[in-house]
Amino acid sequence: MTLLKQNERIDDLQRKGYRLIQNRKQFCFGIDAVLLSWFAKAWPGERVIDLCSGSGVIPILMEARYGEGTYVGLELNGEVCEMASRSVEMNGLAGRIRMVNGDVRTAAAFFGKESFDAVTVNPPYMPKGKGLVNPDPALAAAKHEVFCTLEDVITEAAALLKVGGRFYMVHRPARLKGILEQMDVCGLSPETLTFVHSSAGKDAVLLLVSGVKGRKALMKITAPLFVYNEDGSYTAEVRRIYDE
Amino acid sequence: MTLLKQNERIDDLQRKGYRLIQNRKQFCFGIDAVLLSWFAKAWPGERVIDLCSGSGVIPILMEARYGEGTYVGLELNGEVCEMASRSVEMNGLAGRIRMVNGDVRTAAAFFGKESFDAVTVNPPYMPKGKGLVNPDPALAAAKHEVFCTLEDVITEAAALLKVGGRFYMVHRPARLKGILEQMDVCGLSPETLTFVHSSAGKDAVLLLVSGVKGRKALMKITAPLFVYNEDGSYTAEVRRIYDE
Repeated sequence: MTLLKQNERIDDLQRKGYRLIQNRKQFCFGIDAVLLSWFAKAWPGERVIDLCSGSGVIPILMEARYGEGTYVGLELNGEVCEMASRSVEMNGLAGRIRMVNGDVRTAAAFFGKESFDAVTVNPPYMPKGKGLVNPDPALAAAKHEVFCTLEDVITEAAALLKVGGRFYMVHRPARLKGILEQMDVCGLSPETLTFVHSSAGKDAVLLLVSGVKGRKALMKITAPLFVYNEDGSYTAEVRRIYDE
Repeated sequence: MTLLKQNERIDDLQRKGYRLIQNRKQFCFGIDAVLLSWFAKAWPGERVIDLCSGSGVIPILMEARYGEGTYVGLELNGEVCEMASRSVEMNGLAGRIRMVNGDVRTAAAFFGKESFDAVTVNPPYMPKGKGLVNPDPALAAAKHEVFCTLEDVITEAAALLKVGGRFYMVHRPARLKGILEQMDVCGLSPETLTFVHSSAGKDAVLLLVSGVKGRKALMKITAPLFVYNEDGSYTAEVRRIYDE
């Protein structure tokens, strides 16, 4: 039995019986994390690191989807990281997933350069100082680039990856230019871009981007993903992503 | 009556009764041009220039759509430019549209810097030396960056535009990164990106991008455009673009 702390709850991840501890007062995962775990790929035996890992939802969903391999989740907030470790334990994944409390900006120095096959990241979306900042510092850090910028995230991801290693990120469409620029600066060649629209006829609300380190890739923009049908129900493709 | 030269034909543009002379042996316009003329906007009294103008289809379609305003079409190939001039004459648009035979790379020097409100361009898509190059030099120049690169096109477009002026281009999705980079270098802030997919579930085949000179814009990725339904007929949205 896992001890829950104040404000914590257990959510069923609907996948391999896995469950996740979340804190009602902290950032709780959304469709972004689910889509990233589907968009990203991991092959047997690979080492994968998830930056800005929060509750650990992405490594847990990745393990559920892709099985073998070892996952590291890096999270700056000590309390959140400890909670994520309990989720890992609760699911019997301690041999597969390791949560580490630390700073993205020193990740390559800590884990070693070129030490991972893939990096996943669902970073804070908002530039520091833009939009309404949550008065709660932990929530502010989850949504705003308080402790690491988009540039930091991509720089460290590139440093952590082996040559030929893959980078997977979910972010806001408005940041596309900055994302592609920084990937270029860091030697990550964009491979796939998928735009996520809430429904047909609407602007994109999210983007999923992948890139490969140290190789030239021809970027492709895939079919877009629509989340909702006109009647507000999930589209067949999104239901498939949740179910598969 | 307009004199047709060898290999020329007259096509009905299905808009305001306008017709276009095309040469079977030259590059003939496709859906790219129609989509660009819909994506681009021109307001009454504005000066608009179309680079790599070919048969002049874009200024003619823009005039049909947006009416008042004056249009320049710049085309390097003298024969093609002369043919475009005859199309302009045939449609009684000589007071509105002027075809100029000249080099994109010297456009700003020729027309003057900051002398246009909007630039449209449907440039050659293929980098020089990539893919199969047409043995016919004129066709090769229409499809490959023989006489001007993507960088040249964006550089001149930016120079031609007034501050606050708009840039509209259709291109291939694989060039997205280079397009955004060069726009950034030239002070064009990307505003709108629309991806065009042949049908649902398919990768994008074209992109439409707009940018504004000398101002910060928040880039938005609009709803995607699908050309064909599953049964091969045009989608309602594309029919609307052709008809409206």
